[in-house]
Amino acid sequence: MTVRYARRTTQIDSSIVREVLKQCAQPDIISFAGGSPAPELFPVKQLAAAMEEVFRTDGRAAMAYSATDGYLPLRGKIASRMKGLGTSCSADDIMMLSGSQQGVDLAGKVFLEKGDLVVCENPTYPAALNAFRAYECEFLTIDTDDNGMIIEDLEQKLICHDRARLIYVVPTFQNPTGRTWSEKRRRAVLDIADRYGLPILEDDPYGELRYDGEKVSPIKALDTKGLVTYLGSFSKILCPGIRLGWVIAEPTTLQLYNTVKQGADLQAGTLVQMLTDKFLDENDLDSHIKTLQDAYRIRRDLMLEQLVKYFPKECQCDCPSGGLFLWVRMPEGFDTKRLLQQAIAERVAFVPGEAFFANGGPENRMRLNFSNADEEMIRAGMEKLGRIIHNNL
Amino acid sequence: MTVRYARRTTQIDSSIVREVLKQCAQPDIISFAGGSPAPELFPVKQLAAAMEEVFRTDGRAAMAYSATDGYLPLRGKIASRMKGLGTSCSADDIMMLSGSQQGVDLAGKVFLEKGDLVVCENPTYPAALNAFRAYECEFLTIDTDDNGMIIEDLEQKLICHDRARLIYVVPTFQNPTGRTWSEKRRRAVLDIADRYGLPILEDDPYGELRYDGEKVSPIKALDTKGLVTYLGSFSKILCPGIRLGWVIAEPTTLQLYNTVKQGADLQAGTLVQMLTDKFLDENDLDSHIKTLQDAYRIRRDLMLEQLVKYFPKECQCDCPSGGLFLWVRMPEGFDTKRLLQQAIAERVAFVPGEAFFANGGPENRMRLNFSNADEEMIRAGMEKLGRIIHNNL
Repeated sequence: MTVRYARRTTQIDSSIVREVLKQCAQPDIISFAGGSPAPELFPVKQLAAAMEEVFRTDGRAAMAYSATDGYLPLRGKIASRMKGLGTSCSADDIMMLSGSQQGVDLAGKVFLEKGDLVVCENPTYPAALNAFRAYECEFLTIDTDDNGMIIEDLEQKLICHDRARLIYVVPTFQNPTGRTWSEKRRRAVLDIADRYGLPILEDDPYGELRYDGEKVSPIKALDTKGLVTYLGSFSKILCPGIRLGWVIAEPTTLQLYNTVKQGADLQAGTLVQMLTDKFLDENDLDSHIKTLQDAYRIRRDLMLEQLVKYFPKECQCDCPSGGLFLWVRMPEGFDTKRLLQQAIAERVAFVPGEAFFANGGPENRMRLNFSNADEEMIRAGMEKLGRIIHNNL
Repeated sequence: MTVRYARRTTQIDSSIVREVLKQCAQPDIISFAGGSPAPELFPVKQLAAAMEEVFRTDGRAAMAYSATDGYLPLRGKIASRMKGLGTSCSADDIMMLSGSQQGVDLAGKVFLEKGDLVVCENPTYPAALNAFRAYECEFLTIDTDDNGMIIEDLEQKLICHDRARLIYVVPTFQNPTGRTWSEKRRRAVLDIADRYGLPILEDDPYGELRYDGEKVSPIKALDTKGLVTYLGSFSKILCPGIRLGWVIAEPTTLQLYNTVKQGADLQAGTLVQMLTDKFLDENDLDSHIKTLQDAYRIRRDLMLEQLVKYFPKECQCDCPSGGLFLWVRMPEGFDTKRLLQQAIAERVAFVPGEAFFANGGPENRMRLNFSNADEEMIRAGMEKLGRIIHNNL
């Protein structure tokens, strides 16, 4: 007899982003595919010093099991940072995660049943879609413009569909579009969530990577009724290899997150939590983020400049005020999946846009990452890409 | 309107072990409750040196995202170790996990649908039960004796229940009983799994912690048909604070594990994988395990000696050949949950046995951990516990 797998396994794709990344592992490929911060800007020396200190002063505790909630001093520091971003919370409102991706998976466990609808931006982050698909849900995709979800579209679709159970949004420097919701839209979606009894999952890995314009507070900062479950991450502002994020939620939801996290992996790593706490003791994270902002702003501007220079005039791309990505609309009829094969043959890579549309979407979009490529790579890669696109016109 | 949570959240308890552990956080409590290795035996200096080397030679890579499969050199070393334990496999058959607990959760995602039955030993590891409960399964509990699952009971129950989908076992130094399956039983369960098309999830965190008797190969080593998904862990043989385990499975299952892991948390930590790899380069893990065996053997023997000395004669406990636990049967009618409250008031703790029975079970069992208590604590704690039990007779 043969083994039977669960039905859900037929609904989840291996992440196209991670698959493309695997193809890009060769060092001679110029990759605009990932969502990685720049490794040359990782504060390696400072982290090494903090790690030495952790081992010297508290090595045994750092090697041991610890509470599922997470390391209390670190949660306290995160609470202080969140206050600075406009969100009032205490260490007790925070649980540490093994990366904020885990917060998406656990939202599935806490909120979703088979056949439920997750309301999401169209397009949105594909690994969140796959995390949700493991709970056999479907997606109610909402049209978006420069200011976020189009509220009329959201209202209309909620009236027609009564199985909506969760609103998933990346409201600041969205992946893949780079767009940031206006405060008006943030308030409007909160109002709708309240009326329909829908929790909002606010995924905010990029919020602090702003290159110009005015700060906007997270939706969580506007939430007086405990509707928003907020996910934060150290991956883009510090480094992703430690796998550390956090969730902020009202007490009932946070307790359920804690309970399901115990089954998922017991706890986030003790060592990496104590490392991050020590790093924050001894370094100014804001000044590190300023360094990142200055570097990424230059890369964004250069990539846009090269895009204008080498891509056909029919290609459209807005300038995002922050985040890691450019979202390019190619001429109608263009298939960026086919284009990727040619690009990889020429040693340059990006992510085709299709994966970002939960229920299928246009084939003529591409996502370009500008944070993880230096000036020379951006110049060379964009020229190459431009040439390949021209050859396909 | 109020938010609706998924039904599964009503079926999962917060782990009683973790809840007891939280109560034991005060330093003056002698805790036999956890499943922790001894912190004073963690190779802190060697890990600190390995970490320094990782930062010095490869700091940027260690801080970055990496493949979901895990760090290839480390997977190669694990494959070599597994060969030494009788299981032939290569790095390609292994994926790294954020602790082996994650391998239980992902088994739920890969194999289980609502209403399915998980076949398990009675009693068994409660955090596995909670991980499975998130997939709305139920449990078919199989009676066990000193040699493992009683095969006749397994056969009979499988004939009566057609929704069995997965066999979960901890065949070596089981949690909580400390028992190890005979090779005959291992072969018998494989044969049944084959006949019924049931995958086996073999959870093996304690296998290398043997204090006397002959080595037994994992069930995976006997598996010629790819029925066994094997979970290994660094938590007990190195340290748990790095959260690192691994899964070995045949290619289709391993690919599905990879796909669902992407949604769950993208990947195990890059830094801790490179740390462990470097530690294994520069240290002899076998000799470290020998140190653990020698220390834990003494603790096991002492705890048993104290148990005979201070506990009432009616208490029964076998001597396990390895692992971390004693499993004590108190006189009939004894409620170890009530006993725990008195024990904590007197600053000593253990885990009441009830949580280990998937479908409910006797109230008169207790699990005692001997690895994470020094000689003095074992003497003092067991004397106290004995006194409290006598007071309740």
